[in-house]
Amino acid sequence: METSGKLYMIPNVLGEHAVELAFPAHNRQVICEIRHFAVEKIKPARRLIRLLDKEKGIDDCMFYEMESVDTSKINTQIVKIIKNGESVGVISDAGCPGIADPGATLVRHCQDEGIEVVPLVGPSSILLALMASGLNGQHFCFHGYLPKEEAARKQHLEKLIRDELKSGSAHIFIETPYRNDHVLQSMLQVMPDSLRICIAADILTSQQNIRTKTIKAWKKDLPVLKGRQVIFILGAPA
Amino acid sequence: METSGKLYMIPNVLGEHAVELAFPAHNRQVICEIRHFAVEKIKPARRLIRLLDKEKGIDDCMFYEMESVDTSKINTQIVKIIKNGESVGVISDAGCPGIADPGATLVRHCQDEGIEVVPLVGPSSILLALMASGLNGQHFCFHGYLPKEEAARKQHLEKLIRDELKSGSAHIFIETPYRNDHVLQSMLQVMPDSLRICIAADILTSQQNIRTKTIKAWKKDLPVLKGRQVIFILGAPA
Repeated sequence: METSGKLYMIPNVLGEHAVELAFPAHNRQVICEIRHFAVEKIKPARRLIRLLDKEKGIDDCMFYEMESVDTSKINTQIVKIIKNGESVGVISDAGCPGIADPGATLVRHCQDEGIEVVPLVGPSSILLALMASGLNGQHFCFHGYLPKEEAARKQHLEKLIRDELKSGSAHIFIETPYRNDHVLQSMLQVMPDSLRICIAADILTSQQNIRTKTIKAWKKDLPVLKGRQVIFILGAPA
Repeated sequence: METSGKLYMIPNVLGEHAVELAFPAHNRQVICEIRHFAVEKIKPARRLIRLLDKEKGIDDCMFYEMESVDTSKINTQIVKIIKNGESVGVISDAGCPGIADPGATLVRHCQDEGIEVVPLVGPSSILLALMASGLNGQHFCFHGYLPKEEAARKQHLEKLIRDELKSGSAHIFIETPYRNDHVLQSMLQVMPDSLRICIAADILTSQQNIRTKTIKAWKKDLPVLKGRQVIFILGAPA
């Protein structure tokens, strides 16, 4: 009987192509040995494979889009490939698959089938932002996106102040680049002056800027965030 | 006027010495250029430096224990070194400094002084466990340790079921190796059978084992976790 393959969770670059900043040498070895890839989109996955293994016969690779028409069919197909003895790599568009990115549903399928899931080390903008923020790394929550609509967003932030920020936890949010400045405005309007916000922009690129200040200090020195990749972290009062 | 140095957040190994699994090549370059290190303990920091840079004159390095007698004095000293133009590396005993490990207080000091804080990519057992768990990576909370005392621990878990798990978030806990089995017992006794737990043991070591099962399935196949480095993640019902 053939031995089973594994499901490898393979982080992608953040923004620029800084391989030597982003990946251990081991990740290249894993990519070299795999020809089936479950991906968020094909193009960013191909780009990573090309970056890590210039000699790879990329046209012999098979790509499966995880969130395409029929997810459950794709998941069943991946499990079959692995049980037949070949490993599969999961690659999202940027950063760590399964964290604020697709991948978890396929992993759950594989876990249910007793398949070994192997996470590789790589860049997570959430984790890197928190490390450099000086905010609470002993207790933190990642919330994803705030509501798009301004009134709902402010209500959400007010609830956070009332219920959670007093415990001292850090609260992490992401936003789409064109809405960053609106989100910051809502935060500055709703949050008390003494609260700290970390704004972590364009992590692992040449434009990287990770700054933690009080609401009061940000109000005096407003950054322009439109078009940048930003992580917001709210901390307890200074 | 001399330019200011930077504060580098430098991840340490998890468990074994698997450098090629754990670190991008860039981390070695950063270590090569630094001679001041703010550390959790000196020995694990020296071990990392030796692993990444075999030629380093380690006896010329200066080590500052972050949680020693007078933390605020140490922080002031570090800020002074950086403002005088030398960079400082922050190294905890394992994994990422500032995440479930010391470092955040020093970072906060440096952020307040306008010093650039640069996080390096490396292994975080919390993040790697979540990536491989198949649980909710779009919304998650890291809680640190559960209460030591059994009754308080169960009460805490019951509150979690009542207030938070219904939202579908993942909830991440760590434990000291000798108490792992007690914590698992509490979870199995208190949590509903349909709930999923990921038990991620000895990440990035040769003993790595990351398995997600329902409470019902774990009850039938109880692992022995004493002495292992474990991350527990609680997910929503299957």
